[in-house]
Amino acid sequence: MKLVAQNSSPIFDPRAVAEALFDEIGRATADTVGVSRESYGPGEQRAMEIVKATAERAGLETGYDAAANLVVTLPGRDGDKPFIAVGSHLDSVPQGGNYDGAAGVVAGLLCLLRLKSAGVVPSRTVRLLALRGEESAWYGKTCVGSYALFGELSETDLALKHRSGNGTLGEAMRARGANVARIARGEKLLDPASLAAYLELHIEQGPVMVARGFPTAVVTGIRGNIRHKEIHCIGEAAHSGAVPRWLRRDAVFAVAELITHLDEHWQILLERGLDLVVTAGMISTNPAEHAMSRVPGEVRFSFEVRSQSSDTLEAFYHLMRTECRTIGAKRKVEFRFDRRLDTKPARMSEAWVERLLHLSRRLGLPAEALPSGAGHDAAIFANEGVPAAMIFVRNEHGSHNPQEAMALDDFIKGADLLYHAIVEGA
Amino acid sequence: MKLVAQNSSPIFDPRAVAEALFDEIGRATADTVGVSRESYGPGEQRAMEIVKATAERAGLETGYDAAANLVVTLPGRDGDKPFIAVGSHLDSVPQGGNYDGAAGVVAGLLCLLRLKSAGVVPSRTVRLLALRGEESAWYGKTCVGSYALFGELSETDLALKHRSGNGTLGEAMRARGANVARIARGEKLLDPASLAAYLELHIEQGPVMVARGFPTAVVTGIRGNIRHKEIHCIGEAAHSGAVPRWLRRDAVFAVAELITHLDEHWQILLERGLDLVVTAGMISTNPAEHAMSRVPGEVRFSFEVRSQSSDTLEAFYHLMRTECRTIGAKRKVEFRFDRRLDTKPARMSEAWVERLLHLSRRLGLPAEALPSGAGHDAAIFANEGVPAAMIFVRNEHGSHNPQEAMALDDFIKGADLLYHAIVEGA
Repeated sequence: MKLVAQNSSPIFDPRAVAEALFDEIGRATADTVGVSRESYGPGEQRAMEIVKATAERAGLETGYDAAANLVVTLPGRDGDKPFIAVGSHLDSVPQGGNYDGAAGVVAGLLCLLRLKSAGVVPSRTVRLLALRGEESAWYGKTCVGSYALFGELSETDLALKHRSGNGTLGEAMRARGANVARIARGEKLLDPASLAAYLELHIEQGPVMVARGFPTAVVTGIRGNIRHKEIHCIGEAAHSGAVPRWLRRDAVFAVAELITHLDEHWQILLERGLDLVVTAGMISTNPAEHAMSRVPGEVRFSFEVRSQSSDTLEAFYHLMRTECRTIGAKRKVEFRFDRRLDTKPARMSEAWVERLLHLSRRLGLPAEALPSGAGHDAAIFANEGVPAAMIFVRNEHGSHNPQEAMALDDFIKGADLLYHAIVEGA
Repeated sequence: MKLVAQNSSPIFDPRAVAEALFDEIGRATADTVGVSRESYGPGEQRAMEIVKATAERAGLETGYDAAANLVVTLPGRDGDKPFIAVGSHLDSVPQGGNYDGAAGVVAGLLCLLRLKSAGVVPSRTVRLLALRGEESAWYGKTCVGSYALFGELSETDLALKHRSGNGTLGEAMRARGANVARIARGEKLLDPASLAAYLELHIEQGPVMVARGFPTAVVTGIRGNIRHKEIHCIGEAAHSGAVPRWLRRDAVFAVAELITHLDEHWQILLERGLDLVVTAGMISTNPAEHAMSRVPGEVRFSFEVRSQSSDTLEAFYHLMRTECRTIGAKRKVEFRFDRRLDTKPARMSEAWVERLLHLSRRLGLPAEALPSGAGHDAAIFANEGVPAAMIFVRNEHGSHNPQEAMALDDFIKGADLLYHAIVEGA
């Protein structure tokens, strides 16, 4: 990188700025428990405005792109060169924690403020992308702000209902100023070739870094997934005392057998060294008709398989469908599937992973590489051919809950690593 | 039996009386779908009053006992002899069918009307018991009217909440005139030794008689059960992508394994010839916090085992508890159990079963004996030492639903069998 020093601003204290930003965003989006920053909703918008105002006070250019994501720009000397994007998302799950998403946006903003404050003009333009709609909790679709940028949202996606049942994703996007007509046509709002890289800092959402004592780590790849929000197993309700086993069409016993078989396959595949997690996060008999003394006639449940390998995802998905057919025939129940949802796995850029590991060593941080079990916007960029990389920051109690706990010390280390990566890459 | 003919009434048409009674009771207790006759509630009361009025018009004595059950009496010549009770219950499940319970009460009333109309005075007094509160759907306790008669309702039972969450069983009983103070003290309101027999006609609640073409059948025994309305499996919620299998405490996978193991045990015990059915009629993750992408931290489910053998019930129950301990330790989840509910199995009187089979042959009906999978008031009387017997009438589509379908022809055959049994026994 070649940096050109311009007029310097007063001393920049990243720690104080970060603390103030997290505090302001957290207070502005507080729910009765934790924070709620709805995708393309009011909490996300308030967080956007806080980040935007902070950037503007420092003299940075701001604006919204055609998917209504916030863009903060530090122009480089050579405007024709592909730019470096740094960012994450500003929405949260309902009653979630303050750091999932916001940490990456605040870290990106800190990098831009630090460059600006040092009066440095990099060769490449550097842009902060504060993305919208990463959490599937609101509309059942993840990474909406990123997918929209690359023309990857379908009409079906745009018609997805809000979790309350009121309003669609498309309506919420339009209300925030997104160009839904272009998005619906599948237009690319952002040319992947115009980006040199997409860099994202994020809290780790699993327990590994706490267990191993890593304040920061470098992500090698992001698990993709295949999901069904609802699989409906239909048998026949009957009096629990009066119908013998051979005449039953018990939906609960059928689903229990399915899950137990999937668990057995999962164990075997793990022993073979495959990367795989399997979850049935929601399950319920029908509260309108179930009873303690009634053979359950129906069960609804969700299914999710995640892996870093597309082949593993497909193989396990087909194993699940085969089990449903076998158990369906044996137990005289039917499995009905809603729309299959796919999120592709993504590999991070090897060059950027190497750079981050090298810089970690230089900064006295652990040079540790980890896969990401959770999905991230970085996966969407990577799958568009943009060299992508991620930094994980240690975090206790997982994410998607108010107890998530990231130490500011760890965050500052991660943001510093991100800054040096931008400086080297720009 | 020695019958004495008195002044005869006009020609008695049991078919017309039955049709009119079912019609009047059904209309008076109709819900938006099916009928709703709440235990110790308004629908049950309306049905009681219709039966009472019909009995009174025919000159029969009527009254309510200390548990608020309706009693219709045809005095015998020898008042000191133990009396013959005939009856069933008048409550129904919410939005249930018109025949479950009511068929037995109408059949009993028909027998008394037929004796009265023929001017016959039997040696023993014959009493119709129209019992209350047999269905557990309202307060979670079955056969309340029968248990109350024999001092078998506990303070805990009386404190059971209505399914709506409003009011207790004890309050509802008091409102209908039951002597709750005596019941709470566990007093016997009816001396079992004062009964010569308890006879009950009921629709079959399973599919066996339809499959085999029996209009009537004789019941040999009634399955008892052990139940938990709610078993709470507690693991730990976590991000579904970020937590590997070995760090999970997945409540859904734990309960699926439990149910699958119980199913395996069930199959083996059936092969050994044991009488057994196992049901988990209700299951649910926590709707307030579950998600497609969240390892489920808790599951609530119901458990029920039924058998004609107390030993089989106890053995299977302890097998279930052992499985919970094993799976709990293996998967790092905890199983918490609410109050264990017991209903004892009951054997029908061999002498009465023989009499009913013999009479069936004489009347040209199939002399077929069947077990009852469902519980009935007859089981409570049998376990008090009262010789008890039951007649099943063929019924389509099971019970506890508006589709239950008993042909009037079959009912009249069953009522005729019941009549002849009373005549022989009285």
